[in-house]
Amino acid sequence: MRRWNGWGDTTIDLELNAAALGFLTERIGAAQDPADALWSEALAQVQAQPSRLPPHPLVSIESAERLQASFGQSLGDWLRLRFGQLGRVTDGVAWPESREELRELLGWASAIGAVVIPCGGATSVVGHLTPPDGDRPVLTMRLGRLRRLLALDPVAQLATFQAGVAGPDLEAQLRAQGWTLGHYPQSFEYATLGGWITTRSSGQQSARYGRIEAMFAGGRLETPRGTLDIPAFPASAAGPDLREWVLGSEGRLGVLSEATMRVQRLPECERFVGVFLPDWPAGEAAARELAQARLGLSMLRLANPIETVTTLALAGHARAIGWLERALRWRGCGAGKVLLMLGLTGSAAQVRAMQAQARAILRRHGGVSTGTVLGRRWQANRFRGVYLRNALWAHGYAVDTMETAVNWPQVSATVDAIEQAGHQALQAMGERTHAYTHLSHVYPQGSSVYSTFVFRIGPDFDHAWARWTALKRAVSRAIVGQGGTISHQHGVGKDHAPYLAAEKGEQGLQAVQALIDHIDPQGVMASGNLIQGLPR
Amino acid sequence: MRRWNGWGDTTIDLELNAAALGFLTERIGAAQDPADALWSEALAQVQAQPSRLPPHPLVSIESAERLQASFGQSLGDWLRLRFGQLGRVTDGVAWPESREELRELLGWASAIGAVVIPCGGATSVVGHLTPPDGDRPVLTMRLGRLRRLLALDPVAQLATFQAGVAGPDLEAQLRAQGWTLGHYPQSFEYATLGGWITTRSSGQQSARYGRIEAMFAGGRLETPRGTLDIPAFPASAAGPDLREWVLGSEGRLGVLSEATMRVQRLPECERFVGVFLPDWPAGEAAARELAQARLGLSMLRLANPIETVTTLALAGHARAIGWLERALRWRGCGAGKVLLMLGLTGSAAQVRAMQAQARAILRRHGGVSTGTVLGRRWQANRFRGVYLRNALWAHGYAVDTMETAVNWPQVSATVDAIEQAGHQALQAMGERTHAYTHLSHVYPQGSSVYSTFVFRIGPDFDHAWARWTALKRAVSRAIVGQGGTISHQHGVGKDHAPYLAAEKGEQGLQAVQALIDHIDPQGVMASGNLIQGLPR
Repeated sequence: MRRWNGWGDTTIDLELNAAALGFLTERIGAAQDPADALWSEALAQVQAQPSRLPPHPLVSIESAERLQASFGQSLGDWLRLRFGQLGRVTDGVAWPESREELRELLGWASAIGAVVIPCGGATSVVGHLTPPDGDRPVLTMRLGRLRRLLALDPVAQLATFQAGVAGPDLEAQLRAQGWTLGHYPQSFEYATLGGWITTRSSGQQSARYGRIEAMFAGGRLETPRGTLDIPAFPASAAGPDLREWVLGSEGRLGVLSEATMRVQRLPECERFVGVFLPDWPAGEAAARELAQARLGLSMLRLANPIETVTTLALAGHARAIGWLERALRWRGCGAGKVLLMLGLTGSAAQVRAMQAQARAILRRHGGVSTGTVLGRRWQANRFRGVYLRNALWAHGYAVDTMETAVNWPQVSATVDAIEQAGHQALQAMGERTHAYTHLSHVYPQGSSVYSTFVFRIGPDFDHAWARWTALKRAVSRAIVGQGGTISHQHGVGKDHAPYLAAEKGEQGLQAVQALIDHIDPQGVMASGNLIQGLPR
Repeated sequence: MRRWNGWGDTTIDLELNAAALGFLTERIGAAQDPADALWSEALAQVQAQPSRLPPHPLVSIESAERLQASFGQSLGDWLRLRFGQLGRVTDGVAWPESREELRELLGWASAIGAVVIPCGGATSVVGHLTPPDGDRPVLTMRLGRLRRLLALDPVAQLATFQAGVAGPDLEAQLRAQGWTLGHYPQSFEYATLGGWITTRSSGQQSARYGRIEAMFAGGRLETPRGTLDIPAFPASAAGPDLREWVLGSEGRLGVLSEATMRVQRLPECERFVGVFLPDWPAGEAAARELAQARLGLSMLRLANPIETVTTLALAGHARAIGWLERALRWRGCGAGKVLLMLGLTGSAAQVRAMQAQARAILRRHGGVSTGTVLGRRWQANRFRGVYLRNALWAHGYAVDTMETAVNWPQVSATVDAIEQAGHQALQAMGERTHAYTHLSHVYPQGSSVYSTFVFRIGPDFDHAWARWTALKRAVSRAIVGQGGTISHQHGVGKDHAPYLAAEKGEQGLQAVQALIDHIDPQGVMASGNLIQGLPR
């Protein structure tokens, strides 16, 4: 069963060993175990907010449904659930099972003046699901029952799905016939195709398979004005590309009911290789050279020295790690070393060719390969790392992640600015944060920068909320200050909306608003996401 | 000097040899040499249309300027120029030399109620430059003096140009420092960066360098509402991607003044290889398998049997071709053979690896390689083939090209439907057309389909115009009927605007119009391009 107030399945529990706990205590202090609110207490809060929706046969106003549909995985969502400070919840939940039901619900919501929030896997980390303030009733439309593979064209390598299908289900339906989409964000276990598309998601192997933008060939957007049908061409110069209006629309223009995706045959060969480099400058230079050499690697991920230390400390196996570190030191990778993970995917010939070329580049930068030992470990845990959030919480620590993308000349300064902003924000409250960073997606032009912050939750909701919002604000400002985008892969939602004008400009935001106003003149869709409170 | 009524430079003349002429005569009949209108006659027609623009120090109303700025390279443009049936010409021409002058002109045009047509290299083949009907004066803004390289970042591999820079000038400025954009459409000699971006151009080696969409990292659009500044991120999930509003906007939202492009180091190694395959099904299957194997080839171009025959016939060198054909026949490539051109570009190791993998695939489909003999020839003539239009005209033949993109299962049927539509349209007038086709850009999902039609011009403008419009209409309908996009690489302009609704839907077109109305409420920009006469 899925956890109602944390990440993932209740049968999966990661444990923090004593060494890992000691590592954290040393850095940010010992923490108290928090006292989480109970499910029954949370339900009582929902019951205290009577639904403002009139009855409809497809809409449930049951409290458990309303509770579960009102929160994603933003740390703000966690704090409200764990401390039992729910705030506003949605007024009702529908699980349409067909396009017809979906359109019926949109029409009904329009007619009664409700706001509709589309919800895929409820994995948003930027507040997409928080019901907006105001007098209008809120209907959350859960799309998880729209999960069928509608068509698979093996010649054009296209698969059409109902857009509510979640990662494992989607891959299972494709793999049964020898195909894969290859989209593996960390939210893979629950996130849906439609959510990926409308928030511009990026998977761990996007270097091979592309960001979701590159896979999305066409689809159907159910808007308040009717259905927008977007045909799947291999390419087109026929004016504006309407797919781009769906991508990143975050529910503001409608609900994606179907999507036609570019899929591939399952690769013949795949391996992940961990390579240590002596220090950050060497690692960054190697990552850049590898990206710019366009070798066709499926993944490049570079941990900075603190993340490398943290990874090794949290891995357990102190003795094995000790041996590894001695061997690395002997080969030039000592205290400041960094870990680069490479993904090699393709035909056997392609993997051989890219491995030879990558090896030559890495050698020039002092790289020491550990073969596939760490790679296999990374692969086994690729969707489990996020369960650490539960384990850390149980010991009194909160975790948040923030990310951006910048061009290569800004990468190092941005890493520093983001980590420093996090440190300073908590220092001002007399707290410390353990901050570490990796480059998760590497391009010829630049890189994403993905930072993790671990800090003590504090004694109560108010303390925790103040710490989180101070951190979030400081880091967002640092990102904008470095000229980075406010999100490389998480989206905008409500948490990032205040920072969007810095990159779109007032001109840009007003034009986006004009488009929303045209397609959704009554403001039915996902009000509050993406753009907040622009004067019309 | 540039030809005023045909393609290219007056010093370059391709000749049709007797054999080539015989080949055409046999297929579509002997033609009369046309009597072209003189420059002085055309000028007189301009003078008969007094400019409706008030004076402005940056605007020329000189007749020669107005004449040259009113036509692109659509066959319709040719017919009007060659027969001296100009129709409406622009009222004035400006050559802004800075963003400030550009913005000054936009403001002035707005204030006096003029329409502004941005003009890059005047190579549009879809009527972008034709002044719209109506009472408003028309100002054509020529952007060719905005041609400077403003910044080159070798670390992020980004080059920022003023957007009026033309192909050879852009490459010269980059190559001086060891870089290339790698964008080589057939219009390369004159077309500009801004034109490529705003019409979604695709170059011959887009398989390596990407369509212009993939190269365009950011820029500045000068709109009637002000400047839209689009920062150059490596990637972003921050809502709508404003670059996509510039791409394919065809002047309707403003003028692109600057563009930041993703550039690459000049490749270490490049070769073009010509391979014959026994017949169309084998060629198509090989092209698809090569595209779907994602080998990193820079080009894949497959001529159908008629284009293959035509290429060999027009090449001259009858004796050498005879030897070649005997050798090919002996190896299984006889009457129905097709020619596949491959581009291999990259480091020496990459080219070796992709060549080995390509060879293995081609062998399975009965491919016979001619090495780089035909490839070198293709390379030498890559921008000269278009000069054939002048040579054919001189002998009484008109040439038009039409193109689309469809998914693999539709490719063969689309080739047939397009060629048949062309044949039937002219047959209905008692004329014949020589029609041939190649796949110019090949994707895992499908392919572009690029067809050429040669037919007799006829005795006068009315005959020629009727033949051309009948052909254009029939082929456009065939494309739409096959579910293809109305353009893979030429754009929409005025010639394709009537067919846009078939792929965007009324919903889509109305939303595009709403965006135009927001950004350009007075309708200053490029009126008539992209969308025509939608009810507001």
